[in-house]
Amino acid sequence: MRDRTKAQAAAKALVAQMTIEERASQLKYDAPAIDRLGIPAYNWWNEALHGVARAGTATMFPQPVAMASMFDEDIMKKIGDAVATEARAKYNEAVKHGDHDIYKGLTFWSPNINLFRDPRWGRGQETYSEDPYLTARLGVSYIKGLQGDGEYLKVAACAKHFAVHSGPEALRHEFDAEVSEKDLWETYLPAFEVAVKEGEVESVMGAYNRTLGEPCCGSELLMKKILRGKWGFEGHYVSDCWAISDFHNHHHITATAPESAALAIKMGCDVNCGVTYLYLLRALEDGLITEEDITAATERVFTTRFLLGEFDENCAYNAIPYETVECAEHLALSEEAARKSVVLLKNDGILPLNLENLRTIGVIGPNADDRMSLIGNYHGTASRYITVLEGIQDYVGDKARVLYSEGSHLYRDRVEGLGLPNDRIAEAQTVAEHSDVVVLVVGLNENLEGEEMHESNAGGSGDKLDLLLPEPQRRLMEAVAETGKPVILINMTGSAMDLRFADQHFSAVVQGWYPGARGGKAIAELLFGKYSPSGKLPVTFYNSADDLPDFTDYAMENRTYRYFKGDVLYPFGYGLTYGKVEVPDATLREDGDRFIITATVTNSGRATDEILEVYIRDNESKFAVRNHSLCGFTHISIGENETKTAEIMVPKTALEIVDDHGERRVDSHCFTLFVGISQPDEKSCALLGTKPAEIELDI
Amino acid sequence: MRDRTKAQAAAKALVAQMTIEERASQLKYDAPAIDRLGIPAYNWWNEALHGVARAGTATMFPQPVAMASMFDEDIMKKIGDAVATEARAKYNEAVKHGDHDIYKGLTFWSPNINLFRDPRWGRGQETYSEDPYLTARLGVSYIKGLQGDGEYLKVAACAKHFAVHSGPEALRHEFDAEVSEKDLWETYLPAFEVAVKEGEVESVMGAYNRTLGEPCCGSELLMKKILRGKWGFEGHYVSDCWAISDFHNHHHITATAPESAALAIKMGCDVNCGVTYLYLLRALEDGLITEEDITAATERVFTTRFLLGEFDENCAYNAIPYETVECAEHLALSEEAARKSVVLLKNDGILPLNLENLRTIGVIGPNADDRMSLIGNYHGTASRYITVLEGIQDYVGDKARVLYSEGSHLYRDRVEGLGLPNDRIAEAQTVAEHSDVVVLVVGLNENLEGEEMHESNAGGSGDKLDLLLPEPQRRLMEAVAETGKPVILINMTGSAMDLRFADQHFSAVVQGWYPGARGGKAIAELLFGKYSPSGKLPVTFYNSADDLPDFTDYAMENRTYRYFKGDVLYPFGYGLTYGKVEVPDATLREDGDRFIITATVTNSGRATDEILEVYIRDNESKFAVRNHSLCGFTHISIGENETKTAEIMVPKTALEIVDDHGERRVDSHCFTLFVGISQPDEKSCALLGTKPAEIELDI
Repeated sequence: MRDRTKAQAAAKALVAQMTIEERASQLKYDAPAIDRLGIPAYNWWNEALHGVARAGTATMFPQPVAMASMFDEDIMKKIGDAVATEARAKYNEAVKHGDHDIYKGLTFWSPNINLFRDPRWGRGQETYSEDPYLTARLGVSYIKGLQGDGEYLKVAACAKHFAVHSGPEALRHEFDAEVSEKDLWETYLPAFEVAVKEGEVESVMGAYNRTLGEPCCGSELLMKKILRGKWGFEGHYVSDCWAISDFHNHHHITATAPESAALAIKMGCDVNCGVTYLYLLRALEDGLITEEDITAATERVFTTRFLLGEFDENCAYNAIPYETVECAEHLALSEEAARKSVVLLKNDGILPLNLENLRTIGVIGPNADDRMSLIGNYHGTASRYITVLEGIQDYVGDKARVLYSEGSHLYRDRVEGLGLPNDRIAEAQTVAEHSDVVVLVVGLNENLEGEEMHESNAGGSGDKLDLLLPEPQRRLMEAVAETGKPVILINMTGSAMDLRFADQHFSAVVQGWYPGARGGKAIAELLFGKYSPSGKLPVTFYNSADDLPDFTDYAMENRTYRYFKGDVLYPFGYGLTYGKVEVPDATLREDGDRFIITATVTNSGRATDEILEVYIRDNESKFAVRNHSLCGFTHISIGENETKTAEIMVPKTALEIVDDHGERRVDSHCFTLFVGISQPDEKSCALLGTKPAEIELDI
Repeated sequence: MRDRTKAQAAAKALVAQMTIEERASQLKYDAPAIDRLGIPAYNWWNEALHGVARAGTATMFPQPVAMASMFDEDIMKKIGDAVATEARAKYNEAVKHGDHDIYKGLTFWSPNINLFRDPRWGRGQETYSEDPYLTARLGVSYIKGLQGDGEYLKVAACAKHFAVHSGPEALRHEFDAEVSEKDLWETYLPAFEVAVKEGEVESVMGAYNRTLGEPCCGSELLMKKILRGKWGFEGHYVSDCWAISDFHNHHHITATAPESAALAIKMGCDVNCGVTYLYLLRALEDGLITEEDITAATERVFTTRFLLGEFDENCAYNAIPYETVECAEHLALSEEAARKSVVLLKNDGILPLNLENLRTIGVIGPNADDRMSLIGNYHGTASRYITVLEGIQDYVGDKARVLYSEGSHLYRDRVEGLGLPNDRIAEAQTVAEHSDVVVLVVGLNENLEGEEMHESNAGGSGDKLDLLLPEPQRRLMEAVAETGKPVILINMTGSAMDLRFADQHFSAVVQGWYPGARGGKAIAELLFGKYSPSGKLPVTFYNSADDLPDFTDYAMENRTYRYFKGDVLYPFGYGLTYGKVEVPDATLREDGDRFIITATVTNSGRATDEILEVYIRDNESKFAVRNHSLCGFTHISIGENETKTAEIMVPKTALEIVDDHGERRVDSHCFTLFVGISQPDEKSCALLGTKPAEIELDI
């Protein structure tokens, strides 16, 4: 195991040899070399939300929100480890070639464990879930995978964006997230707390916005009191990019750049992604900070570099060969993740398709054959992409004819600039009419949902204005529906959409997410039943954004499955398989700081993987969350007509409520645990035709 | 066979029922319906240079300049026929769905038979060759394929852009092409003359520029004297898009839009791509034109519509089913064309690669995995693309590891916006160092060479400023060369490039052109020797643009292989195979209006296809072209160590010169015919290690 004390001592000794100017220079993300001390240049900025990103070729895993649909800690850790292996392999070669550029280092600003509070948030796709427990469990698994448990950090992970950050993108540089103590501790902080305490994440990134009046990269509450104080965080803190300049430029909580630099470093922000720390020496001259402030930060950043083994030429990771990049094992892992990520939302029985009964398959839609539909954002480059169309073609081979129409532009009203609006509708209908079944592939991509400002989404600044698909795609869905052919809709988005039209008119609905470079293969194989889907929604699919509070409202009331009061289209935790799994019975026993649930699981359908979910309802406390909360999950494989038992761990902290002061404690004697394949809500039970087993727990 | 007299009569009768306003309305490209006469709306604008373009899914053949490398009239006709079949299938469905939009009709503005006079021309890729004979033969074949020989025109082809048009794109709306009578008739007009007389092309499109002072869409010389006068053209004439408005806006040869409309229609321009014919009625009012001018044009355009069978519901082509679009037969034809189009320019013996000796193959370069590298311009949408990388991966399967690096951006100095310049060079070198052989795929795409104005090529306005690859790709070639690994360069461009660096440093050089949607498969199979390449350059690859006259100079002196005085890198007509074909002997006999050459052909290498080329040199006339001219070609298949004879037809008109007045006649008694696999020039003979057989012809 790595030895922080030793690394701290080494860092202290090295930093002691630096002038104050040299120390200050090391706190900007693009730290220069200090040749006289044998310190190479180092760029702190790297990304790996779902594979090494922006640094050339690498295995591309499904987008994080898709991976979350696996409800699977084990595979998240494996993926983190695979990413770290490739990161090391690429780093080793970059160093060998003298390339110390951005995206070439070992400090990855991943995972993004913000809560996916509102489906309109463009960056929600980077996160895991609207649920704090699921986010925490997946975040810590990914962090552990990335960082490893060797003598050195395999790579340094970073929990971002601390804290209370989830849009709007257009306002992020000036916004103040107002949040109650209860929501803060009940919803926004738990994943970070687990990342720090259990995950030992090496780095935390501050958000752009203010939270409770303080900018997140200069917040006494968040950084000093909570993170380093209450949680004992010892790693380094990095600002989001150019966030410190927002202090004076947009938040107006400082007047000048030196003041902003001073506030950030005083609060413990060690690395500045941006240029404001160019003013650190000026802040020192002006008496705004002390040399000690700079030295402490420099020691922290070099502690990380020592923990990474950068200064040990015998670091075991230096031997990781380039051939691990996109190696067969990692590609197989990515394929497994894609399979497990897809969520089957509706199936009137049409799926799985029987190829023997099909002469012609129509594949239609702007996301059917666009690599952009696979990659999400913050992605690397794959050496091979497989779109849904390609996946279907490859699967079908010569056994059926596959007809294709783009159907519409993703968001413009016509495909050809000189054409009339809807210039592919006739072709789409033609393809449908000549087909036995239609696979209609719609959705968004990183140009329509993502981070701040995109030309193609100026209105939403990366966020969605509502939950509707772009108008040309809605017209396309109507036109295809008009043909009367059976349609399977594949929705490729990183967020919940209003899929009511598809739900009402089409035979099947599949949430494909952004499934990674070769994800079209997984989707095709699902359609033809090569495997049974098992993904579950990590976010609620509402009927409409009209059902939600204002996007700028950070109160959790009437948001997410835990607090929502109305009907939804597809609930959190929901997803169909080709099996017919039920949990008729479950029991609970104590085991130290946790409960172990033993569930009887039956499957009267075909063999499948299935996610078992446990929700807890506090029947007594006035601080209980409105509905119920996920408190345990596991994944099982179960054969046709098999009955088996499965164990699910539930931490005893699941019994705790958060009171209005943000304090956590047990405040009740009477709980119900629901053990099944979904939430216990009416809609889930109706959609699945089964309800969870209940366990009454009195303490 | 179609009956123009009958169609003319029908058109006359129909037009007679129209008001003058209705007649005028039918001459704009987007002609409205005349419901009272049962005439549907019709948009004259459609494109099919290498497959039905811009109208959704269709089989995409290689870019025209690539297809020309086949030197194969038969396949060009087959391709034209396949395109027409798909065009009809798509038209039938469009009509059924009430879609009369642009790109949905039966009048295709293809082929582009302008001479590829200068490699800098961005639209040269749309054309066939720098040689008038090759251009004429391929143009007429494609036209015959498109138009068919049925009762009706299968589709209407269009020979464009008449005449003397080949850049610069930036000046096309105001440029006056100055050309001698000799060059006009010797070089610029022959392909059009053959298209009209032999090809019976239904339509001719006028160019943007002026030629000898007259705008090409309002030229008495070109349109009245030559086209309709001397050649007896009876089809319709269409303006290039918005070219008539150039008369007053840019050429300033008229003062107003009505004057421009009047000039165009008076000269016989029947269809206005643009809006200037909105002023036809004003021109009539002003006495600039007569009703008869409008009526004559309207009758001509309706003659074409009758010839297309539009008003005969029993037209046989109405039965062409949608399933012909991208049917297996057409895809196979496209694959055959891709195979035959690729030109092997250098091979030190490394090719074909022996997969059994390779553990790792590095594939590097911005065109290795970009669909844009396949499609050229004026393209349709394919339901499947195969890039070079994908082609190699598919071929290799599990037999070797394929490593990939993008290597560089196509033209920007870095791939990642935030990165430093050359941010993929280290990765490219890493891939090379870890590979046994490198396939380096460079080139351009339609954003860098093409038609007028592209954001990414503002300097050249679609044209190239020189023959160099973009700077980042030159840096990439150097970086890969530095590794010392054996490199096969694939150049994917629609025009000749300065490939001297590759020729000097790499083991093999392949001109891949834009090979069509699945062209990467053909290129991969060439590398591994699944077939022997047989393509020949239809354009000269010069050492540098410095060797050429000014781009605006339309004189042929020192341009193209027929007139060029210096050394070139790869000559017109040159291309290697995996065979070793020679023509030791050839004889000639007369056969009516042609000669038949009988060539003895030997092959001491592996079985291959080969192109036999015949050039003629006039040894006496002072009007003889400087070097020699292609006058016959054919394609053969020849086995390993086989000897066979082949016949090649040479028209007797090959003996003619063009004098300084543009008159064609035989002016000599003494000719040499060269019969071989290349030109008879020293460079070709040195590159191939064999020289053509010679036939002295005295008449």
